[in-house]
Amino acid sequence: MKRLLVQTGIICAVVALAAGSAGVHAQIAKNVAQKSPWGPGDEIGTLNMMTDASRLDVIKQVAGGKVYDLGVEMFVGMPTCCVPFGDPNFQIFMTHTPAQDTAKELLSYSGDGVSMYTHSGTHIDTLNHFGLHGKIWNQVSSQDALGVRGWTKSGADKYPPIIARGVLIDVAKSKNVATLPTSYPITVADLQDALKKQATALKAGDVVLVRTGVMTLWPDTAKYRLADQPGLSLEAAQWLVEGQKAMLIGADNFGIESFPSKDPENFVPVHTYLLAERGVSLVEALWLEELAKDQVYEFLFIASPLKMRGATASPIRPLAIAIRK
Amino acid sequence: MKRLLVQTGIICAVVALAAGSAGVHAQIAKNVAQKSPWGPGDEIGTLNMMTDASRLDVIKQVAGGKVYDLGVEMFVGMPTCCVPFGDPNFQIFMTHTPAQDTAKELLSYSGDGVSMYTHSGTHIDTLNHFGLHGKIWNQVSSQDALGVRGWTKSGADKYPPIIARGVLIDVAKSKNVATLPTSYPITVADLQDALKKQATALKAGDVVLVRTGVMTLWPDTAKYRLADQPGLSLEAAQWLVEGQKAMLIGADNFGIESFPSKDPENFVPVHTYLLAERGVSLVEALWLEELAKDQVYEFLFIASPLKMRGATASPIRPLAIAIRK
Amino acid sequence: MKRLLVQTGIICAVVALAAGSAGVHAQIAKNVAQKSPWGPGDEIGTLNMMTDASRLDVIKQVAGGKVYDLGVEMFVGMPTCCVPFGDPNFQIFMTHTPAQDTAKELLSYSGDGVSMYTHSGTHIDTLNHFGLHGKIWNQVSSQDALGVRGWTKSGADKYPPIIARGVLIDVAKSKNVATLPTSYPITVADLQDALKKQATALKAGDVVLVRTGVMTLWPDTAKYRLADQPGLSLEAAQWLVEGQKAMLIGADNFGIESFPSKDPENFVPVHTYLLAERGVSLVEALWLEELAKDQVYEFLFIASPLKMRGATASPIRPLAIAIRK
Amino acid sequence: MKRLLVQTGIICAVVALAAGSAGVHAQIAKNVAQKSPWGPGDEIGTLNMMTDASRLDVIKQVAGGKVYDLGVEMFVGMPTCCVPFGDPNFQIFMTHTPAQDTAKELLSYSGDGVSMYTHSGTHIDTLNHFGLHGKIWNQVSSQDALGVRGWTKSGADKYPPIIARGVLIDVAKSKNVATLPTSYPITVADLQDALKKQATALKAGDVVLVRTGVMTLWPDTAKYRLADQPGLSLEAAQWLVEGQKAMLIGADNFGIESFPSKDPENFVPVHTYLLAERGVSLVEALWLEELAKDQVYEFLFIASPLKMRGATASPIRPLAIAIRK
Repeated sequence: MKRLLVQTGIICAVVALAAGSAGVHAQIAKNVAQKSPWGPGDEIGTLNMMTDASRLDVIKQVAGGKVYDLGVEMFVGMPTCCVPFGDPNFQIFMTHTPAQDTAKELLSYSGDGVSMYTHSGTHIDTLNHFGLHGKIWNQVSSQDALGVRGWTKSGADKYPPIIARGVLIDVAKSKNVATLPTSYPITVADLQDALKKQATALKAGDVVLVRTGVMTLWPDTAKYRLADQPGLSLEAAQWLVEGQKAMLIGADNFGIESFPSKDPENFVPVHTYLLAERGVSLVEALWLEELAKDQVYEFLFIASPLKMRGATASPIRPLAIAIRK
Repeated sequence: MKRLLVQTGIICAVVALAAGSAGVHAQIAKNVAQKSPWGPGDEIGTLNMMTDASRLDVIKQVAGGKVYDLGVEMFVGMPTCCVPFGDPNFQIFMTHTPAQDTAKELLSYSGDGVSMYTHSGTHIDTLNHFGLHGKIWNQVSSQDALGVRGWTKSGADKYPPIIARGVLIDVAKSKNVATLPTSYPITVADLQDALKKQATALKAGDVVLVRTGVMTLWPDTAKYRLADQPGLSLEAAQWLVEGQKAMLIGADNFGIESFPSKDPENFVPVHTYLLAERGVSLVEALWLEELAKDQVYEFLFIASPLKMRGATASPIRPLAIAIRK
Repeated sequence: MKRLLVQTGIICAVVALAAGSAGVHAQIAKNVAQKSPWGPGDEIGTLNMMTDASRLDVIKQVAGGKVYDLGVEMFVGMPTCCVPFGDPNFQIFMTHTPAQDTAKELLSYSGDGVSMYTHSGTHIDTLNHFGLHGKIWNQVSSQDALGVRGWTKSGADKYPPIIARGVLIDVAKSKNVATLPTSYPITVADLQDALKKQATALKAGDVVLVRTGVMTLWPDTAKYRLADQPGLSLEAAQWLVEGQKAMLIGADNFGIESFPSKDPENFVPVHTYLLAERGVSLVEALWLEELAKDQVYEFLFIASPLKMRGATASPIRPLAIAIRK
Repeated sequence: MKRLLVQTGIICAVVALAAGSAGVHAQIAKNVAQKSPWGPGDEIGTLNMMTDASRLDVIKQVAGGKVYDLGVEMFVGMPTCCVPFGDPNFQIFMTHTPAQDTAKELLSYSGDGVSMYTHSGTHIDTLNHFGLHGKIWNQVSSQDALGVRGWTKSGADKYPPIIARGVLIDVAKSKNVATLPTSYPITVADLQDALKKQATALKAGDVVLVRTGVMTLWPDTAKYRLADQPGLSLEAAQWLVEGQKAMLIGADNFGIESFPSKDPENFVPVHTYLLAERGVSLVEALWLEELAKDQVYEFLFIASPLKMRGATASPIRPLAIAIRK
């Protein structure tokens, strides 16, 4: 990281802010990419928990036809996590437009190109996004599986459609705030409190979506920014995954976890724990406001990552439909 | 169109091939953008046919948990419709990679950017993609609604998630061919024959997916190409929309309709008829091979276009789940 | 402008800062694009002042072989003028890299793509960059000459190589400061004082390069920024062009003129005056530090814009070689 | 290479055509990157031959003010070497355009972005473009000097402006053909014959530009293409560099050398010989037609690569001005 940032001439505020309690999470994070329990060929980690039966089960519980749209709009000037890291900003540009003098032509032809960081807008992080010591999930090494256009393993092209039971944990509401404080690390107790207030029980295989409230600041680029957002603590992530057997974790912030990291060696300790050690993918920048407003805490969750070969992420527009409690 | 192509120095084979029977479709196509029956503010046309009730109805018919993935993989070198028209080819490129000497660093950070034509891979065409005489669906004029970054009307950002009953019409199978002949225009009788053989009845509001078989040539860029693919005739499109009240039309070819057009003034007469005159959006380059193999002709169809502001298309990865007959 | 910025969701600090003395420059700027004295077909304005004789004359005066490099390095994370306006940031990305295990392959193949705003790094603004009331230099209207990929008139593709006598006016040195104050508007007297101290006389057809000292802040993106840089006042620009018959004006800042503009209707009044009313092109973000250090005030100036069709600018790397006084 | 192409799904006709006489050039090419005679820090190879004296010497010989423009226009749809290798096609797109209703606004603001392969149009290949067994010129290894955004050594950012004596060798004219035959490998005798007919003598440090005549096919994308162009044989390249001490070699074709290569292990043997073994940079896709027409064989050559950090090439627009014989 340091090497890359120096190379590209970027001064990284996030890294600069990191300080202090290195190694505090030693018991949780092993800082070594782990083998998959689903075998040596596994590239999708906990998404293997989905089965025809699990999908049918949740579909059968659907209680109405209202669809909640969990994706944000994408536009020139939108907030981006990663321009400070050297990544491209979002661009859409026209390649065909109708003639200005429309009397001249029958056809009015419009077309457009886009360019973006794959982690733009609401998106899923795939398991090759962060590894440890050169290895990603399932101990796949960059020497073996990283080409010029991306990893041959665990890219978005390998991802299945996601159809599963989803649960919203509205931490902001539970704490009665519009948005959690800057850099606030959500604790296990915070999650438990919110679940209790909601009367929601987690189940193995759930897609767990955590609401911090920061999306109320979207799309103000000065306020909705990675650098100091609240988010999950490592302990909370561990509780969700090891304790509650969550299949997929999402949030309304840019990076799931609270920033900046307290670990000077690792600016994304929750990412590496989830992606490289636990095989858990992440969904970021989710629009959870309508679900929260309607107090819909349990739902059919649907997301369909674009199969871009090797990609470390895909923009997605997830959907939710309320299920019977 | 001619002006643009001349300007950009592109010789357009499709246009060069167009010849002959101009005006033959006079009774079907009015060649004027039409007003929406859903009111002056409508930007999505027939997608207004979806309701909470229609969605719940089809979800309730789901008969199993197997998910059919109707989207293609996206990769450098993939077939593209539109590079000959001057549009960008698909690019994915890395912006962060792990250090080659992994002993040096704890974190192995991978990131990537993409750039593409919005009509890449499996995608939905929005109603602003083609208009007539400067106006798109609902008689919205380019003078009023076309900015430098795209239309303020009928872009992908305005599109709802699509959850509806889907029907596959396997014309290739009905005609007992691997793929329909080059440039073959599918007739109304072809559709009726296939539906009869399948014992499938269309219903108002259906997402109708037509299989020509050309996806069996994918991803051979020399064979899977817009210029001479089989596809719908204008009459067949009319029958589906005006006769059968289809809500959305998709196909496994690059452009829904057969190419090249026979109309020297209009290289995409089915597009303009559907988009500008009928408010019907299109889904192109669908992967229908698994549905066809399993003879799944009726299904829950789910697609979730990315809300890219103003975009004339969005890559999507639609899903299908069989429903009870 | 306002329309575009609203459309793209960008809050433009420059515009927000503009206030006050609208119309003060009424005598200088007519706010109407002018006809070219070089005829109705002219697209390059004052660059027509170059002739074989003028080029040979200055080449003959060359006094040594030392070459001054007036272009800046271009890299990911470099300062950019225009990301706040929605323009793309600078990206370079690899499309081919050698195998990590080099024992496997004879060839080590590296290739790369770039994407950028055309006004990146040291660059020349062409006459189609800013017009007035829909018309650029020589009263060419956007209706007639603006296509989806750019103007058919006055783009970088129409620009000749530039070989001319160049003069440095070191205003920062004349005022004995490292860099002129924030937003400082350089006056005619400032230019005259600096020329006098330098003992430099301007000649008709000169390339005039103005040093504000801001390049001493490069490439600190927090300090080298368009929004509040010092630069030419409109009066100073007028004096150079109408009084001294300068052919081309350059500076070490991002926008030639001082920012923010005092005209609420025009955030770039010097640009519109020079480009649309006087046919004078601009060179921005020049590296003048070596010339200044060596007190080289008169030189052979060479620049060779890339002939990108229609482009409103081209990155360039101009050169200077001292001539005899 | 094979790995990369397979990975990106591209079938590479050039490689497929390669066959036969592997190893025939064993005496010329060592197939190992060499150390620089200019020391361990050298990144620019033979461009070190330039000195203040050499530059002044050629400038002093300038015989007139006519400038020959050796660069091609760049536009959407232009011929590109490398789209078949997965590289981006040339794109220019507008990011700001004037309002269509120009009565509304004073300012008519146009801006544009570009994206391209760095080897687009007339361009210089830098020494990091091709190495051998993981090492580029001066035995710099990819392990040490290749980052995600490019090499830290021998990129275009390290390149000096090029001001030197240039010589045109018009092989097409010498052989009395419009263009040399497809795939024709230019021999040492061909070069000697042409030089004799032209009465031109090469000197150490020359920029040698070879005319095959293929630019007469530009910009017909069906005819001007890398795959089967005539160009230098390895022997001819050796004669120019080892025998005549050429500093820089250019040509009007896409790849300097004849294609396809006869070496199944190396599809660009002249590239690797010049770049990795001899430290000689290359200029490709030069417009030599005006020089040829005017029979200007000796000239001041000026080129100024853009200092894009790490880039394996830069588009350039070189200039030539005739010198006294």
